[in-house]
Amino acid sequence: MSDPITAALLVIGDEILSGRTKDKNIGYIAEYLTAIGIDLREVRVVPDVEAEIVAALDAMRARYTYVFTTGGIGPTHDDITADCVAKAFGVSIDVDPRARAMLLERIPEAELNEARLRMARIPAGAELIANPVSKAPGFRIGNVIVMAGVPSIMQAMLDNVAPTLQTGRRMLSVSIEAALKEGDIGGPLGEIAKAHPDVSIGSYPGYVDGRFQTTLVVRSREEHHLAAAEAAVRAMIDDMKARKGKA
Amino acid sequence: MSDPITAALLVIGDEILSGRTKDKNIGYIAEYLTAIGIDLREVRVVPDVEAEIVAALDAMRARYTYVFTTGGIGPTHDDITADCVAKAFGVSIDVDPRARAMLLERIPEAELNEARLRMARIPAGAELIANPVSKAPGFRIGNVIVMAGVPSIMQAMLDNVAPTLQTGRRMLSVSIEAALKEGDIGGPLGEIAKAHPDVSIGSYPGYVDGRFQTTLVVRSREEHHLAAAEAAVRAMIDDMKARKGKA
Repeated sequence: MSDPITAALLVIGDEILSGRTKDKNIGYIAEYLTAIGIDLREVRVVPDVEAEIVAALDAMRARYTYVFTTGGIGPTHDDITADCVAKAFGVSIDVDPRARAMLLERIPEAELNEARLRMARIPAGAELIANPVSKAPGFRIGNVIVMAGVPSIMQAMLDNVAPTLQTGRRMLSVSIEAALKEGDIGGPLGEIAKAHPDVSIGSYPGYVDGRFQTTLVVRSREEHHLAAAEAAVRAMIDDMKARKGKA
Repeated sequence: MSDPITAALLVIGDEILSGRTKDKNIGYIAEYLTAIGIDLREVRVVPDVEAEIVAALDAMRARYTYVFTTGGIGPTHDDITADCVAKAFGVSIDVDPRARAMLLERIPEAELNEARLRMARIPAGAELIANPVSKAPGFRIGNVIVMAGVPSIMQAMLDNVAPTLQTGRRMLSVSIEAALKEGDIGGPLGEIAKAHPDVSIGSYPGYVDGRFQTTLVVRSREEHHLAAAEAAVRAMIDDMKARKGKA
């Protein structure tokens, strides 16, 4: 079994930490990566501060197969992501002629001022990621993938970069709805989890139409492990219901 | 000027990283803390893995005034937050009589099985945080505040713990809507940001009713710094519009 392909996400921006902007990218990227066989293992949100961004980049890129970033690649002074990535990798950064050409597809040359040219500043050695929405590209250098913070643009960039990524075996999962309270099944469920160390079992309580229920999510990359744990969970639920019927 | 009161948020749960559950707590807590004068400086999302939770707790509690956690305090085997907090602080953990009494307000004693009693396991020395929704309490130990992941419960716990927290001077902010493109104002805005190092100026592009606009958010704890930077931004916008009119 090959090692899983892992990822971390670094969300960059004061506006997320102040609550002014509600992040919509974490959930989208989490679901997307899971679907293509990449395990998202960690997310961090940091402010628009160079030392914070560089430290988080360095911690994460050393540890995971890929690091995705969102935010901080626009034309204003608070957009410092590209410079921070260059600093983390110890490479120079300057206006990239390929990125400048992309901007010119949308922006008249007379309007391509210094602020807009910031969006063409790309660390040396990076590959560009096309932005069909507003042209200013994202980029990839080493295992770090730099994307916009605006959700529609981020999503388009992710579509463009995804086919170039190494992916692992997809995590398989099955959701089992139990019309039982989480506190009633916690004990036997813990025993099943212990007996099936190659699967992960999550338990998520809910309250639907005036009744408690619990969704159990069994996950594994191995179909036979998944099937064995699923059978054990279903048998446990049937057993609990039979006992409740008798009581 | 006293030091700002800072905080970090640790979101705990495989379901957030797999994308199965979309986090609703980060934005809420960010806005809440900003409103009461606590600066949220960092957010991390980590899986239900002891070593990851303990490492993140230790990194964050050493650095910020407060660390808030959400998730992992239910009755099932994957709810390991309380044990991880005890481990991080090097204290014992056991069923707390006060927490057990809270559970008994809602759960008949005959149903208080081992799984449900997990929700009364509290690190030694912690203060409880009441949970009016489903009784199982959160807790605070040192500078770490442990809350539920279910948004309605987390929100009630935050209301209960907030009056006990040290808060700083509120961050003041003013939002200025400019009917200008971000790329047009990026240059002069950067100059203003440089000239006003005691304020932070964020720039957020938008596209409303077929027209580009930019929201500029000026923030400072000092009213006179805020007023000076706001005046400079408004003058810059008027100047840009006057030039556009002439062009």
